Amino acid sequence: MDSKQFREFAKAAVDYIADYIDSVEDRPVLSGVSPNYLSELIPDEPPQTGEAWQEVLQDVDRIIMPGLTHWMSPHFHAYYPTACSFPAIVGELMSAGFGCVGLSWVASPAYTELEVVMMNWLGKLLNLPEEFLNCSEGPGGGVIQGSASEVTFVALLTAKEKKVADIRSVHPEISEAEIKGKLVAYSSNQSNSSVEKAGLLGSMTMRLLPVDDKGQLRGGTLLEAIRKDKEQGLIPCYVVANLGTTPTCAFDKLEELGPICRDEEIWLHVDAAYAGTAFICPEYRHLMKGIDYADSFNFNPHKWMLVNFDCSALWMRNAKHLVEAFNVERIYLKDQHKGLAPEYRHWQIALGRRFRALKLWFVLRIYGVEGIQKHVRGQIALAKFFEDLVRADPRFEVCTSNMGLVCFKLKGDESPTIKLLEEVQKRKNIFVNTGHFQGRHVIRFAICSRLTERRHVEFAWNEFCSVANILEGRKMETMDKPMPTIEIANMSCQKIREKSK
Amino acid sequence: MDSKQFREFAKAAVDYIADYIDSVEDRPVLSGVSPNYLSELIPDEPPQTGEAWQEVLQDVDRIIMPGLTHWMSPHFHAYYPTACSFPAIVGELMSAGFGCVGLSWVASPAYTELEVVMMNWLGKLLNLPEEFLNCSEGPGGGVIQGSASEVTFVALLTAKEKKVADIRSVHPEISEAEIKGKLVAYSSNQSNSSVEKAGLLGSMTMRLLPVDDKGQLRGGTLLEAIRKDKEQGLIPCYVVANLGTTPTCAFDKLEELGPICRDEEIWLHVDAAYAGTAFICPEYRHLMKGIDYADSFNFNPHKWMLVNFDCSALWMRNAKHLVEAFNVERIYLKDQHKGLAPEYRHWQIALGRRFRALKLWFVLRIYGVEGIQKHVRGQIALAKFFEDLVRADPRFEVCTSNMGLVCFKLKGDESPTIKLLEEVQKRKNIFVNTGHFQGRHVIRFAICSRLTERRHVEFAWNEFCSVANILEGRKMETMDKPMPTIEIANMSCQKIREKSK
Repeated sequence: MDSKQFREFAKAAVDYIADYIDSVEDRPVLSGVSPNYLSELIPDEPPQTGEAWQEVLQDVDRIIMPGLTHWMSPHFHAYYPTACSFPAIVGELMSAGFGCVGLSWVASPAYTELEVVMMNWLGKLLNLPEEFLNCSEGPGGGVIQGSASEVTFVALLTAKEKKVADIRSVHPEISEAEIKGKLVAYSSNQSNSSVEKAGLLGSMTMRLLPVDDKGQLRGGTLLEAIRKDKEQGLIPCYVVANLGTTPTCAFDKLEELGPICRDEEIWLHVDAAYAGTAFICPEYRHLMKGIDYADSFNFNPHKWMLVNFDCSALWMRNAKHLVEAFNVERIYLKDQHKGLAPEYRHWQIALGRRFRALKLWFVLRIYGVEGIQKHVRGQIALAKFFEDLVRADPRFEVCTSNMGLVCFKLKGDESPTIKLLEEVQKRKNIFVNTGHFQGRHVIRFAICSRLTERRHVEFAWNEFCSVANILEGRKMETMDKPMPTIEIANMSCQKIREKSK
Repeated sequence: MDSKQFREFAKAAVDYIADYIDSVEDRPVLSGVSPNYLSELIPDEPPQTGEAWQEVLQDVDRIIMPGLTHWMSPHFHAYYPTACSFPAIVGELMSAGFGCVGLSWVASPAYTELEVVMMNWLGKLLNLPEEFLNCSEGPGGGVIQGSASEVTFVALLTAKEKKVADIRSVHPEISEAEIKGKLVAYSSNQSNSSVEKAGLLGSMTMRLLPVDDKGQLRGGTLLEAIRKDKEQGLIPCYVVANLGTTPTCAFDKLEELGPICRDEEIWLHVDAAYAGTAFICPEYRHLMKGIDYADSFNFNPHKWMLVNFDCSALWMRNAKHLVEAFNVERIYLKDQHKGLAPEYRHWQIALGRRFRALKLWFVLRIYGVEGIQKHVRGQIALAKFFEDLVRADPRFEVCTSNMGLVCFKLKGDESPTIKLLEEVQKRKNIFVNTGHFQGRHVIRFAICSRLTERRHVEFAWNEFCSVANILEGRKMETMDKPMPTIEIANMSCQKIREKSK
């Protein structure tokens, strides 16, 4: 393929993407394919000779499109948002077009340097403590990683090495292995599965502590767990505090956890993967009170901040600890600029690095601070609108409502809620998923797509009401009646309720 | 930014990329900027209000372009290649445009399914043992990871968990921590720094064993190291064998290492990050003889196979070991399709996944098998051409020549070679780096860019000759004479030698 063909192919792909996003609302949000659908549409082996790009693009439409779950659809309300914005798409395109790998400063200075500045921009946007920033006097600094999962693991490994070094500086007679075998980490039982995974992969016992009735990890709980472990001769090493848990977007009490970690010399990592973006709006910054106690802080611009996956922002109060844990220097990586610019390969697991700062730059410039604030506030307002709809219906209860996430259920025991969710999922008109809150199933309804508007929230609420009505009706009528789908979902809630009476 | 503006912006970016690649040869391959150049060109904070895309694109040219080291340049001969091809760029673009995240099958079935099939295509292309493939009857399978560094670490963690489980199934009285403290890994002292890093991060002693005079790790050396460790009560756990080392592209003796690993129940990971692509050509497959002993095998299509970074292919003989080491299941990730399609999040460190299979598909279809074979053979032929040029000059010696990499030096002690390299690097007409071979500095000359042709190899050789001539001349003449640069480098080798006489 020469550059002339590339221009044609790439521009056709641009139009395909624009058309896709313009019309994504009209597609069923969930794919209807069955497992292994694709293997029947595609040969078992690659072609011997090259094919025309036109055929490939047609096959994207024929083979790939039916197998997508449309995260960009305004009817996508599962998990948390994963950003997709036009400026970020172009950022990914240009990054691919340059085709460099930022494995050191000299391997492409712009890669490192734009990242340094973008992490400063971001840190200032969130009003993070000055000492976390690259532009601060001290050893703090920020870096882009792939995901919060990766970051939680990276911070754990750093905490582990630091704890071992600290103990051995006083007690050189204790072996590294002995110390490592006694280290303990703590987080809440509401943490993302990646926190547990970090403990598993890092060979550190991870205690998932109970939370209060708001889903928050409290100081007393942590203190008690630490006390018990210390009695057993174990060594507390690492705490992951959540600002915005995965199930309900609960905020751990950083102000309580922070002083404990400081007193006990425990590494405090703060995971604000989703909710961190909200701190761009001053009115939400009170939720990170206690951040001054953190050793590391992470949020994902690729979740809520309109930067395409992957782009996870990590700041360290003292990045030297990270570099000490990760640095293995060899001759073919040496260059003359060490010390003047960070060598980010020592800040992460892999050696190679993509130019992720570029899409971040594009988004921040083309949206501007106000554009991103507007996006965040708009999505929170939509969630509030949904919350009000739920509260107005006496059959339902709102369990939690934080940021762009509302968790709710049918009143009473949980089996009708599970049934409701199952039926809604079967209809595939909207995509939601489930979470646990206070030991019970709840429905998680998140505002995800940047294309979601009020009318889509109404549509979703109608969908829940329709199914609830049908399920209620079923109790009294026959169970054999086939389940109506999309026509009903398009009716207003009132109409459906009247009809089912 | 609406979709109309996106079409304009993205198409302008496509043209920018095409123009860039068309003219990359004319740019100095190495950036001339000094550390912190970028912070002076860019504000300290993001803009409050959004800016026009035209300004952003202009700034890419003004701020980013001068800070790039041009990996695509035909004068780039450092490290190993990192692929950049037109089909792969479009693959990245479309993946960004869909904006999905493949965190489970249901989160976008096409993501998982295309990856399953692509890993089968690739495995067949390389003629890997059937049992590694997803389409085999057994528990083997392939997955795309971010980089070989990540893979080496992932395989180490898997090997560790398996070893602990195996020992504890027989000796439940031994604690996990005690076993982990005794585990040892082995690789050669020619391994990439990421191998040492995997040991560091995975808390496993990593022995970097000496190699023979061809840079290959031999069975006897491994056996002796194992014997010593077992005498000390340590537990051999993991071996990383290189098919194509970083410094010289040496191939460890898999046929010798394999049976030892099998007998000693050590996990054998084979890292063919760069050279693996060559196995697409049947004439190079003899170099992976012994692959049947491997537990895991990895190569990077993003190095030599024209697929943009990142795309690292990993196959496991028994993927269950990997999943057992990595799986932490929680309710919000559960879906109904478990078992029918792999849940790749349990095959890697992070939870989220990009659609990397798409660019792989585009490359394989648009180049076809023959296109990729032609690319590989062409690059090896260029390296051979360079090798012949070096051999024809009595001042130089070729230390190693494998695949697309030639390592050479000036005859005699190493200081003139170091000086030569330094001067060549200063001139920035070509980009090469150094490596160690048999304890001495050598110059690594790799064919990297897919745009490199015979004339670029000639240009590079002239560059080395010019500088060597000047350095020779200097010995006799004054040392104050300023170093001539590009005009000389453009002359033929003969002319320069005549001139300097």
